[in-house]
Amino acid sequence: MLIESSYEGGGRRGSLYKRFSKEYPYITPEYVVSLGETETPLVEGERGVHFKLDYLLPTGSFKDRGSWAMISALIPHLFGRGLRKIKEDSSGNAGASVAAYAARAGIECSIYVPAGAAGPKTDQIRGYGAELHRIEGSRNDVTKAAQSSAEDGAYVGHIWHPLFRDGIRTLAYEMIEQMGGRMPESVFLPVSAGTLLLGFLAGVQHLRKSGAISSPPHIVACQTEIVSPLFHRWMGLSYTTPASTDSLADALVSHDPPLLDRMVASLKEVDGECVTVGEGELVRAWKELSRKGFFVEPSSAVAYAGLKKKRESQGWGIGESVIVLTGSGLKAKPEALRLLQHDGKRV
Amino acid sequence: MLIESSYEGGGRRGSLYKRFSKEYPYITPEYVVSLGETETPLVEGERGVHFKLDYLLPTGSFKDRGSWAMISALIPHLFGRGLRKIKEDSSGNAGASVAAYAARAGIECSIYVPAGAAGPKTDQIRGYGAELHRIEGSRNDVTKAAQSSAEDGAYVGHIWHPLFRDGIRTLAYEMIEQMGGRMPESVFLPVSAGTLLLGFLAGVQHLRKSGAISSPPHIVACQTEIVSPLFHRWMGLSYTTPASTDSLADALVSHDPPLLDRMVASLKEVDGECVTVGEGELVRAWKELSRKGFFVEPSSAVAYAGLKKKRESQGWGIGESVIVLTGSGLKAKPEALRLLQHDGKRV
Repeated sequence: MLIESSYEGGGRRGSLYKRFSKEYPYITPEYVVSLGETETPLVEGERGVHFKLDYLLPTGSFKDRGSWAMISALIPHLFGRGLRKIKEDSSGNAGASVAAYAARAGIECSIYVPAGAAGPKTDQIRGYGAELHRIEGSRNDVTKAAQSSAEDGAYVGHIWHPLFRDGIRTLAYEMIEQMGGRMPESVFLPVSAGTLLLGFLAGVQHLRKSGAISSPPHIVACQTEIVSPLFHRWMGLSYTTPASTDSLADALVSHDPPLLDRMVASLKEVDGECVTVGEGELVRAWKELSRKGFFVEPSSAVAYAGLKKKRESQGWGIGESVIVLTGSGLKAKPEALRLLQHDGKRV
Repeated sequence: MLIESSYEGGGRRGSLYKRFSKEYPYITPEYVVSLGETETPLVEGERGVHFKLDYLLPTGSFKDRGSWAMISALIPHLFGRGLRKIKEDSSGNAGASVAAYAARAGIECSIYVPAGAAGPKTDQIRGYGAELHRIEGSRNDVTKAAQSSAEDGAYVGHIWHPLFRDGIRTLAYEMIEQMGGRMPESVFLPVSAGTLLLGFLAGVQHLRKSGAISSPPHIVACQTEIVSPLFHRWMGLSYTTPASTDSLADALVSHDPPLLDRMVASLKEVDGECVTVGEGELVRAWKELSRKGFFVEPSSAVAYAGLKKKRESQGWGIGESVIVLTGSGLKAKPEALRLLQHDGKRV
């Protein structure tokens, strides 16, 4: 149903709801929960590269596109059933985002995170007044803990909830507006549990079915070598969780993402591609971004590292590209940030 | 000259330069340095309060309005003289902002900060590739260290530089646009060295002289009791730097601001007001903001604490107000953030 409503450019400055309400008929105007989620800047880099600054959304991460839609849509249903509390699991960014929108909506919130979640993210989650639970084990163990907890409250795990992904369609709508009615040749995204990839692809497919674009941009899903289940499935390789799971990209920790089949199928539909980057490539890309003035968390730099890797292997023939920068550098672990310090030489 | 060009509403979505180029005739289009500084959201709170989210600017602080104008204007002059390095002193936010715009412009940068500057801010400054110098002593000692350093590079201290303040006029222009062509009854600002206050007042006076508004909004300059030189001068009281200078508001540390006389004169011109808040009032206001979903640094909450204090002393008769939220909560010291943790009860 959702993607069958015709797409019409919004163009009006304002909240996501004001600009794209037609595309979200299931959100009731009087229950819209807004924290100032407006269009994020698209800034030109060099040689046809554009950076989409989703780290400037209200909580410092692209997740706000999802939380905005999910929480706005759920509030009347929660209230109707007398529920005033939600539970969510996250590596950190989605938890902070859901906690912020819950706070704005005036409901309580409990967030489950991996034991090693970044300090700035857990401080932020608690800042919004949410209860924080640190869970030992894998990312899926964190999900299980949230789902099976005896604590009251509705489980709204963002990875599973279709309305969270659905909010991320707005990224595709903004991109075509900001590019003047067309899409770039290629789009590079960091991919973990797939909410960004699947949400963005839904938006792209909507634009295609509405006739706004005739073919999709070339979508490049980027992962670290350490956490690369999609890449392995895509290449037909077997994948086992490596012993060391400590990639610098601490927001990309889904070794066994529940929507993996759907990610592969969706990426095939648009004839996309998947690349992985090593930790050294990641650090170099991260440092290069920050030295250009784009202070993002390491996980965001995975997409830029992916572009650099493809450029090196394919010459400069990638054309006009958009790199989605997903999370703020202010959310990075202090020990990771040491890697960015001035060392007396320019990058 | 600057404030004599007539003000015309911009209304176009885009960078500050695209929207307000007419008001900045001294910036040359080909030297504009942009990091995606676009209109910040104005979000409605309760009972006539609006929050202006300047903490969502590119580096997480309102300082980007100033750095954008100052660096864009200076670049051709620096290049013309063969200079490729600047020096700046700051309690943290302006340093991060100047470092970011310098990085974007491709020039080197050296930032002097107080020894106790917040970790996230110094990490961010170094992230942009700037050299960091921690200076013991007062805020003015930090300025002196930057000015007298033997290090090469042009000193562009933002407190002294008129073009930095001049960029902050954009805050007034955005406010009138977002309020639909009028100004709110009152505007609450945190004040330290005065760049925000003086820059905003210059914009307000421009709007008045252009006939866009007939009278200025009621401007309330907010300080902590611990650091309150403007309040004291305003009330005709003598002020001595207190022994303990550790307000939670670590961005408001100017005990002896060089532009104090000008601040008093400008605030008198608009028949403004000055209030101080205690640390307890500050913590309560900060927590209340974060529990509403506005995760800001403590210094930003000083303005909201000022509003709450005036409401308590004057009943609810303040009318429609804008609180300028200046810096991201992700820039707060981890030890300060502990004050926000969930304690089992709602605020």
